[in-house]
Amino acid sequence: MNAQSTATRDLYFRSLENRDSITARFDEVRRFTERLCEPLETEDYVVQSMEDASPTRWHLAHTTWFFETFVLRPFDPGYESPDPIYAFLFNSYYVQAGERYPRPRRGLVTRPTVKSVFAYRRRVDEAVSGLLSRATGETLEALVPVVELGLHHEQQHQELMLTDLKHLLSFNPLYPVYRPRESEAGRSNPPEAGWIAFPEGVVEVGHGGDGFCFDNETPRHRRFVETFRMADRLTTNGEFMEFIEDGGYREPTLWLDEGWRTVESEGWRAPLYWREEDGRWMYFTMSGLREVDPAEPVCHVSFFEADAFARWAGARLPSEAEWEIAAAKAPLDGNFVESGTCHPLPLEGKGRSLSQLYGDVWEWTASPYVAYPGFRPGAGALGEYNGKFMINQMVLRGGSCATSRSHIRKTYRNFFHPDKRWQFSGIRVASGE
Amino acid sequence: MNAQSTATRDLYFRSLENRDSITARFDEVRRFTERLCEPLETEDYVVQSMEDASPTRWHLAHTTWFFETFVLRPFDPGYESPDPIYAFLFNSYYVQAGERYPRPRRGLVTRPTVKSVFAYRRRVDEAVSGLLSRATGETLEALVPVVELGLHHEQQHQELMLTDLKHLLSFNPLYPVYRPRESEAGRSNPPEAGWIAFPEGVVEVGHGGDGFCFDNETPRHRRFVETFRMADRLTTNGEFMEFIEDGGYREPTLWLDEGWRTVESEGWRAPLYWREEDGRWMYFTMSGLREVDPAEPVCHVSFFEADAFARWAGARLPSEAEWEIAAAKAPLDGNFVESGTCHPLPLEGKGRSLSQLYGDVWEWTASPYVAYPGFRPGAGALGEYNGKFMINQMVLRGGSCATSRSHIRKTYRNFFHPDKRWQFSGIRVASGE
Amino acid sequence: MNAQSTATRDLYFRSLENRDSITARFDEVRRFTERLCEPLETEDYVVQSMEDASPTRWHLAHTTWFFETFVLRPFDPGYESPDPIYAFLFNSYYVQAGERYPRPRRGLVTRPTVKSVFAYRRRVDEAVSGLLSRATGETLEALVPVVELGLHHEQQHQELMLTDLKHLLSFNPLYPVYRPRESEAGRSNPPEAGWIAFPEGVVEVGHGGDGFCFDNETPRHRRFVETFRMADRLTTNGEFMEFIEDGGYREPTLWLDEGWRTVESEGWRAPLYWREEDGRWMYFTMSGLREVDPAEPVCHVSFFEADAFARWAGARLPSEAEWEIAAAKAPLDGNFVESGTCHPLPLEGKGRSLSQLYGDVWEWTASPYVAYPGFRPGAGALGEYNGKFMINQMVLRGGSCATSRSHIRKTYRNFFHPDKRWQFSGIRVASGE
Amino acid sequence: MNAQSTATRDLYFRSLENRDSITARFDEVRRFTERLCEPLETEDYVVQSMEDASPTRWHLAHTTWFFETFVLRPFDPGYESPDPIYAFLFNSYYVQAGERYPRPRRGLVTRPTVKSVFAYRRRVDEAVSGLLSRATGETLEALVPVVELGLHHEQQHQELMLTDLKHLLSFNPLYPVYRPRESEAGRSNPPEAGWIAFPEGVVEVGHGGDGFCFDNETPRHRRFVETFRMADRLTTNGEFMEFIEDGGYREPTLWLDEGWRTVESEGWRAPLYWREEDGRWMYFTMSGLREVDPAEPVCHVSFFEADAFARWAGARLPSEAEWEIAAAKAPLDGNFVESGTCHPLPLEGKGRSLSQLYGDVWEWTASPYVAYPGFRPGAGALGEYNGKFMINQMVLRGGSCATSRSHIRKTYRNFFHPDKRWQFSGIRVASGE
Repeated sequence: MNAQSTATRDLYFRSLENRDSITARFDEVRRFTERLCEPLETEDYVVQSMEDASPTRWHLAHTTWFFETFVLRPFDPGYESPDPIYAFLFNSYYVQAGERYPRPRRGLVTRPTVKSVFAYRRRVDEAVSGLLSRATGETLEALVPVVELGLHHEQQHQELMLTDLKHLLSFNPLYPVYRPRESEAGRSNPPEAGWIAFPEGVVEVGHGGDGFCFDNETPRHRRFVETFRMADRLTTNGEFMEFIEDGGYREPTLWLDEGWRTVESEGWRAPLYWREEDGRWMYFTMSGLREVDPAEPVCHVSFFEADAFARWAGARLPSEAEWEIAAAKAPLDGNFVESGTCHPLPLEGKGRSLSQLYGDVWEWTASPYVAYPGFRPGAGALGEYNGKFMINQMVLRGGSCATSRSHIRKTYRNFFHPDKRWQFSGIRVASGE
Repeated sequence: MNAQSTATRDLYFRSLENRDSITARFDEVRRFTERLCEPLETEDYVVQSMEDASPTRWHLAHTTWFFETFVLRPFDPGYESPDPIYAFLFNSYYVQAGERYPRPRRGLVTRPTVKSVFAYRRRVDEAVSGLLSRATGETLEALVPVVELGLHHEQQHQELMLTDLKHLLSFNPLYPVYRPRESEAGRSNPPEAGWIAFPEGVVEVGHGGDGFCFDNETPRHRRFVETFRMADRLTTNGEFMEFIEDGGYREPTLWLDEGWRTVESEGWRAPLYWREEDGRWMYFTMSGLREVDPAEPVCHVSFFEADAFARWAGARLPSEAEWEIAAAKAPLDGNFVESGTCHPLPLEGKGRSLSQLYGDVWEWTASPYVAYPGFRPGAGALGEYNGKFMINQMVLRGGSCATSRSHIRKTYRNFFHPDKRWQFSGIRVASGE
Repeated sequence: MNAQSTATRDLYFRSLENRDSITARFDEVRRFTERLCEPLETEDYVVQSMEDASPTRWHLAHTTWFFETFVLRPFDPGYESPDPIYAFLFNSYYVQAGERYPRPRRGLVTRPTVKSVFAYRRRVDEAVSGLLSRATGETLEALVPVVELGLHHEQQHQELMLTDLKHLLSFNPLYPVYRPRESEAGRSNPPEAGWIAFPEGVVEVGHGGDGFCFDNETPRHRRFVETFRMADRLTTNGEFMEFIEDGGYREPTLWLDEGWRTVESEGWRAPLYWREEDGRWMYFTMSGLREVDPAEPVCHVSFFEADAFARWAGARLPSEAEWEIAAAKAPLDGNFVESGTCHPLPLEGKGRSLSQLYGDVWEWTASPYVAYPGFRPGAGALGEYNGKFMINQMVLRGGSCATSRSHIRKTYRNFFHPDKRWQFSGIRVASGE
Repeated sequence: MNAQSTATRDLYFRSLENRDSITARFDEVRRFTERLCEPLETEDYVVQSMEDASPTRWHLAHTTWFFETFVLRPFDPGYESPDPIYAFLFNSYYVQAGERYPRPRRGLVTRPTVKSVFAYRRRVDEAVSGLLSRATGETLEALVPVVELGLHHEQQHQELMLTDLKHLLSFNPLYPVYRPRESEAGRSNPPEAGWIAFPEGVVEVGHGGDGFCFDNETPRHRRFVETFRMADRLTTNGEFMEFIEDGGYREPTLWLDEGWRTVESEGWRAPLYWREEDGRWMYFTMSGLREVDPAEPVCHVSFFEADAFARWAGARLPSEAEWEIAAAKAPLDGNFVESGTCHPLPLEGKGRSLSQLYGDVWEWTASPYVAYPGFRPGAGALGEYNGKFMINQMVLRGGSCATSRSHIRKTYRNFFHPDKRWQFSGIRVASGE
């Protein structure tokens, strides 16, 4: 979901989609992007709230540019761009696709207007639909994988649109409501977390079957894993408040050295979007400001905070291999963006099995984001940067309440720098035996 | 015109306006602000392109907040604000008027929307008009000066709206046109500049008569001035290009030490908004990108550049006292914002007299911005910061193509830091004898 | 005394010195530099504690480089430098004298060693002495003024050596003693300050007579000055502590806007070198750490603090013209570096006259450092930068306990940026009438 | 060797040393530290050339403080410190050992002098020697492991002394010679590098036997490793110059995204200490400036450069597990600090086996520095920060020409941030099959 790094996963391997299903999926994904914009005012589309984020307007145009550049330009000679400068304005970092407007200035460009950007989307949508409908079988074979990649790319940006927008709205003392909250009365705190044990051995991880995946999930390969235990649910706000009350943010020995320096330089004393008012913890949500619910999974913590919490709790974070093995048999189901909550939900009625693996919050792992053994970068602009972001970032797993159900996979590797907090990122602890 | 410093001039002294004329002027000034917005798209209102600038939306609301805070709150008990948080969002730096939203984040607030801000303006306009129409004579006496001050305050922000907007649009590779340019064919280069000589002696400067002025123009006081000469017109782009071609931006001995360091750290090699394309100098104007016209006054130069140019030309910049004496008898007329050009114009058909003193471009003087002898700050929030900005800034004189004719005075002191270039600021040289 | 700006004053006008007196003075000044180093350990010579400061080792070499470059190179064909790279290492900012080693890295150069630098001094001293003894009358006429200038240059660096060294030692928790303090028992607080009044009129300021001066003191010229009053003594630590206790550092309306931002960003709550311990104010002095003496003049305040203090006291700072007029008839006498205190002293036994004008602390004036009317920069490397520092700095007058008696003049203009505090700078207030 | 992170490895496990051998080793290591200082002038001991580095004086005192704090304080009740403030000045980052003087200011403290620091060393040496000679068997059992740890700690700082000193001297245009170079005439370029292949399987890595190791090398554990190939020698300057000439520093697709941004922001175009003069590559060495020798291993490259070079060469960097397996059977021999070269040497007379594994240069691996499975941090101040640096750093293996032979191990894990270049760090490439 990392805007800087979507290309890392922009290599697909094979596609089984046919003309009808790809057309239907194209419509669905493109429409969903626009549905996410419905609560917005024109003013909300324009602003870049920090260098990591992009304006909604830019996301709308950039995902469209992707189809223009990699689908229409090579496959549709009759297509004409509304303005050749769009190729410059809306490229993100594909060097081989040409020069780009500097990322930190995306919020300084107020035209083309939002209306023109929607018109741009419509023009490209019609051209792609026309192309799909009239393409020969052979063309289709070349075309479909790129369209499919473009749709996964767009789904990544859908999640970023939401997280970037939340970041932007959080600066507004009016606390704008993106989506009103449905009543969630009667929630009670989840039961104590339990441990699920897993045996040692050589295991296989990574994507190996059919169907789409990003290249960083490949190749499927063997690892030796020691016995380990995973918490059967996510860490809650209530548990995290205990960490705070116990002085977690004031005790250097709980933190990695760089984590502690970040705590000091940034003045962290709670997750992002939390503020203390009259002795109570409040947070800004997509439904405005409200009191922190202790039953919900904790969210908007950095890797540094997740790691410090785990140490405080006498545990550790799982490696990504451990996470993948543990999650392999769980149903790929959960609180995704389709639920409309835009917020993680408390666990309900659970038994003694691994819960909340998918959706709700991305789970920080203890694994730095590096290439799998035998990883091979693809060719051309789409595969150009496959390994480009494999440094100084940590892997997160499982998707969040802002991820599409049709986008996530069990082998999906998300990654962010250890100090980032604006994604829906949370904590599940693990233990050595 | 300095956004950081308008309050410096927010002390009025006496007012001769009556009910009708103040009402008419109120309508005129408030409407003019909105007329300046007509070419804008909603997206253009929102963005803050640098810390020195503010979004148009903020200017619209802040000037309205001024009337709400200093006119309606004390004089109209029935007035109700659309939202009490506006007082926090739209205060600039009046400490005694309460807490303020941090200036560098003005561009992060996307709501209230532009539409709501215009509704806010209407509500305040109606309340002020009502107040003016029904006020007793005694109330009026107290009220009118504050309204008058509010209107001058708003005129300062009108100029800032234009300069901030130009700065914002300049980042857009589409080169948006704020106002299409009328044909200006047939201009020829102005004749060589001549010198006008002035005698030595004790003179009086500063505002002394009736009518509105800012407090920094007072008191009128005596100075001893040596004989001096003033150039009879502004420095042109053509002359400035000679400076560039002669290596002006590469020769440290022409610059003040801090100026040279700015040249190096910022990579300056021409005025702001200039860029070289295929060996020709182009600049971004309010009418889009076009070739630099050598006949026009040079504009968007910093004090450092003005000072270096003068040194290169074997001259110097005038002191503000010299400027005021020289300008005292000239008619207060010129290319102001009412001309609709938003751009300085070449000199036409001049004789041997001082030309272009008013309008076109603010003229940098050699005088640091300090208090006049006997200057006394006013009381309360309006006068609170009268001397607050009197450090590290240089005085500019004469108004620009973005200044209102009804706003400028012969004794008017504008001021900016010596490295600032986004105002319509230019050069007139002087000489010792 | 400003290291960045000594060249501003590097133009001499005429010299009445003869061979004997210049030789004696050469010996005396050069020896005094070395005497100031006697309390130092080798380690103390090397370090640069901030960008504004230079290592003692560098001052020793740079003042020597001055004689090598401007005296020996042109006048003594037989002179050979110990190493040609010294010309690069020890030039400060004389562009026409060649490339320079970057100022912020002066502390990274550990060789030539201190011992070698002293040897360099000896070699140059001998060569200059030899040159002076054997020069013909005509050569002497050209030579003496440059030597004289070099000696004033060296005296400026003597003061900087002390202030830079104090800054360096202040970081050491061992509180090294540069010079043990003589007993000063029995001091009592000085009497209340009184006002001395001066009439309005056209006056003359600037250097006009014979004898050495820097070019920025010229030309002598006329000014109109209103009536004013000057405090008859310096502001004391006791008075400044009242300002602190009254919340002076917490009240924004007392400060210039940039001053207040500096207070906030730097966390200022007292003069430089002050720290609170167990409810008492202590300060680091050249004699180590001790309790603040309320009877002493306050020292190590910035212009911002001097200006805020004056506003708090219902007064203002004097202009430099006012200061010069007031000081014109006072005897040029005081607590200079020759006293050996390296610290300002309490006023003793005063009557109703202007006291403490010279020595003790440099007095901040309200005047920005700009050119006098008719000021003309000199030619060549020595005069190259005469006006180069005339921006964003404020004038200080009167010399300090680190200034040589033979270096100061009544028309002497020192200057520093308004946020600087490491010089021996203090406060004398003035008033409008 | 990372100054920030030596504590990470400060946990010893068991010690087989007896009284005599530990005493002998104590003398030897402590003397060697001082022998490394012999070529220094007093001035060279004092300066901190960047935040990552420390002054020699500080290294000398800090290693001594270690014995004072962890050996003498608990075991020798009669010991008295020369000054209690040393405990504050010379602690690095052991929070549980008390407050520390801020790291970036280590270069601002000029006293205690170098002479006093040597006296401090002597006093502590005598006290430790006395303690060792008179300790009972039981005390010795507790004492020896801490002494042993202190000696390994000191050996890490010996290497840092050299790398920090090289960095400092490199700023000096006199190019000081730390150690004159012996003639190395007649070297010829080494033969083409060959590949050594290794089979797949579950292997064991990490420290498992007797003898000292740091805790980050434990526990010994199983890994699954695919087949791989290792280059049989280090990458040479000659090969790296080909990379440069082929535009390696100008081609973004060769670099990790953060690597490329570092290239651009730092202006990298060659390894640290290289400069181009008249078309030839020169570098600063511990023997002064000389022409780059193409036969030597390339040195002073960052991980980013090592990674980009490997990509350019169609290879990759080895993982640390691969490196450890490959190196397991090689003799632990090479060009260590004892050789006195302080510089990597060209390969001589090699056959077809893995060469240059130990000494010469630290070899960057592709492995982020993280905890081994089952890693457990120790207790108390010495073990306090065992995992503290396990983020955003990459592992290096094999030691360098600045490492002691008696300090290195086959399982030794060094680690630095991927942009650091001031260590003696180089490149060995690997390949997938």
